[in-house]
Amino acid sequence: MPGTLELLPAEQITFQRMLDGIRTTFERFGFVPVETPVMELSEVLLTKTGGETEREVFFVQSTGSLEQGKAPELALRFDLTVPTARYVAEHEHDLAFPFRRYQMQRAYRGERPQRGRFREFYQCDIDVIGRGTLPLYHDAEIPAVIERVFDDLSIGEFTIRINNRKIMRGLLERAGEVEPDRQTLLLREIDKLDKRGRDAVAVSLEGLGLDQKAVADLLDVVSSRSTDHASARQVLSSLSGNPTLDEGVAELVEVIDVMRALGVPEHRYAVDLAIARGLDYYTGTVYETVLDDHPELGSICSGGRYDDLAGHYTDSHLPGVGMSIGLTRLFWQLREIGVVGPSPSTTDVLVTLMDAEGLSYALDIATRLRAAGLCVESVVEPSKLGKQLKHADKAGIRFAAIAGSVERERGVVTLKNLTDQTQVELPLADVAHHLSKEIR
Amino acid sequence: MPGTLELLPAEQITFQRMLDGIRTTFERFGFVPVETPVMELSEVLLTKTGGETEREVFFVQSTGSLEQGKAPELALRFDLTVPTARYVAEHEHDLAFPFRRYQMQRAYRGERPQRGRFREFYQCDIDVIGRGTLPLYHDAEIPAVIERVFDDLSIGEFTIRINNRKIMRGLLERAGEVEPDRQTLLLREIDKLDKRGRDAVAVSLEGLGLDQKAVADLLDVVSSRSTDHASARQVLSSLSGNPTLDEGVAELVEVIDVMRALGVPEHRYAVDLAIARGLDYYTGTVYETVLDDHPELGSICSGGRYDDLAGHYTDSHLPGVGMSIGLTRLFWQLREIGVVGPSPSTTDVLVTLMDAEGLSYALDIATRLRAAGLCVESVVEPSKLGKQLKHADKAGIRFAAIAGSVERERGVVTLKNLTDQTQVELPLADVAHHLSKEIR
Repeated sequence: MPGTLELLPAEQITFQRMLDGIRTTFERFGFVPVETPVMELSEVLLTKTGGETEREVFFVQSTGSLEQGKAPELALRFDLTVPTARYVAEHEHDLAFPFRRYQMQRAYRGERPQRGRFREFYQCDIDVIGRGTLPLYHDAEIPAVIERVFDDLSIGEFTIRINNRKIMRGLLERAGEVEPDRQTLLLREIDKLDKRGRDAVAVSLEGLGLDQKAVADLLDVVSSRSTDHASARQVLSSLSGNPTLDEGVAELVEVIDVMRALGVPEHRYAVDLAIARGLDYYTGTVYETVLDDHPELGSICSGGRYDDLAGHYTDSHLPGVGMSIGLTRLFWQLREIGVVGPSPSTTDVLVTLMDAEGLSYALDIATRLRAAGLCVESVVEPSKLGKQLKHADKAGIRFAAIAGSVERERGVVTLKNLTDQTQVELPLADVAHHLSKEIR
Repeated sequence: MPGTLELLPAEQITFQRMLDGIRTTFERFGFVPVETPVMELSEVLLTKTGGETEREVFFVQSTGSLEQGKAPELALRFDLTVPTARYVAEHEHDLAFPFRRYQMQRAYRGERPQRGRFREFYQCDIDVIGRGTLPLYHDAEIPAVIERVFDDLSIGEFTIRINNRKIMRGLLERAGEVEPDRQTLLLREIDKLDKRGRDAVAVSLEGLGLDQKAVADLLDVVSSRSTDHASARQVLSSLSGNPTLDEGVAELVEVIDVMRALGVPEHRYAVDLAIARGLDYYTGTVYETVLDDHPELGSICSGGRYDDLAGHYTDSHLPGVGMSIGLTRLFWQLREIGVVGPSPSTTDVLVTLMDAEGLSYALDIATRLRAAGLCVESVVEPSKLGKQLKHADKAGIRFAAIAGSVERERGVVTLKNLTDQTQVELPLADVAHHLSKEIR
């Protein structure tokens, strides 16, 4: 279906390994799993947002409802944030706060399919949600998780760019812009600095009514980017002027200090004062993550702090901080640039069969291999060995266990490594142990 | 949302463990993963079926399409069989046959929500799909996987009931019913023997025009159920009379013989000549699986052999055999009868904090525990220990690491087991090793 990413098994295995790896890291940091239904009531889903997103929703309707000419009551989630807000509000009294959950499911956007834009995509999200308050510490914990996730995925060096929206708002206040809606408009333009370049952004800002001097001052400041912890502290120490700005600076200083205390290597984070994130619900710390060798991919993992998650669904005040990896898009991008590709099969070994008399010996081999935890496919229709090895090759299976009549008489098995074409003859009783070692 | 199963984390963890366990067994038998989009083009999805299922479909429409008053072009899959057929037909030349795939995703039915009936549900499917032909061996391999799956899930003793549709068709031929459509009608009634009882089924069959003597003979035969391998062979050896019947008997004998050779314990399978499975596409071997202590749950895993998977989508002849576990429904049923419930948290340990000065020591503990592969939540806002232990309790976390100023001075940590309330004091360097052992 256009706008979806359907993979062959060898790539599905790669994708699944990435999902599993991300999940393991999320759990290591004390996040617990949540899944929500793919559909929400339209009124729940569309409460929070409006405008662009609302136009891109997939509505859902049963045959009965459609025949009756009713308006659709259900819609597919377009992210995991709204369902999480609804979930936390609905189950508030059964959850332990701060609530640390991860959710790794698909979301949907009803937009026209385009190359590299997906209508169905995995999101891998974590959030820490407090009741009443949430210590700033967690703003540093999230990038610590991001750092471990991408270190583990081994897709190349990366930098977590970090900022605090209060700094940008403070800078705009300093430039005389105190109206929140005006600030949001201007923030959105500044956020494009990386993509559009300084000159284009300057033109936009002037077009929005900022004078040339103010624009130049502003862009001078937000163009700063740190290279290590000391330079980050230095960039921040140079900023002051109003309470909003001072608060943002104090928060960001604390966050990067805790990040360092949490063991995040200095070369993997940078203060970047131009980052704002398009989403209006971020109120403090914001993050983006960029692959150092592939900045053209844009941010591969983004997030931030929000003041109140679920104001539409509960009277409780639920501040939080979190991040999201759009894994379908990331996988697609990484495949395009050759960083990820097909994996060997999950099946470790093909137990071959050349003559019908050998079946019970072959099944014995397969059972022993399985008992040792190995993943085994058994050939059960005798055929020429070459044909079977071709099948193994096409399926991405790395080993073949071979036992013709001569081997069977001697109680041995030939184990062939299909990657390097080496082979070794082993007593039947040793083959599982030997292969387990080879695989690890 | 009504008709969906949304779980709290402690139960989500149980559910996830079941999914992971099933996946591990599937892979051990050489099945490889496939995922397909949740939506298919309506014309693809509704080709194969009609009648009841078609009325229960969820149609999907983007905002734009809805506004233009168009008919929905997309629908949510109602099982994984139709998407698999489309997948195999679409990717046929890139797949290695016999193609052994597993798919564990959600499917949807647009029916009215009722207690225990779900509109969104996980299916865990395996299929072996041949090109041209597929050896009967695989009909025995599927129940061997089923046996390992449910042994591993540890949800109680179970029996895989097995039959062959050709036997039932042969018996109907013997009773003078040779018309396939008539046979299907009658099969559906006989399939209800377990639920409705012999007398009710007899009335239905007579109502469909079978005479009393033929009904009695038929029900005598199909009521047989074996208790071990020898009795299964005996039940089958007593049947003959026409080529269809003989073919069914010969196939079923071979299948159970191979099952035994594959190590399926005799008490876990039984020949049950009443099983037909409602779905018309099964053509040979059919299975159901029943929990011995909870037959009232009905079949918890069903499947069978089909002659041709994807006739609607390709000219290739693709016979297959497979099975499906409806995990959402099974989980709900097992929870109702108290067989499954909440799990402890995936988070192994809460690192507590009683005073702000202890933060760096606490982070050191947490980092050491994580480096050892443990799942750790850190408290970062100092509070009374009792409050923190209560949080751990509510979150289902089994251990707490405690270090007040006295412990810190001495370089030790108190590790408290929150299940049995025991505790032990350990040098900081030993705590990760000790807890890893405790957890395993």
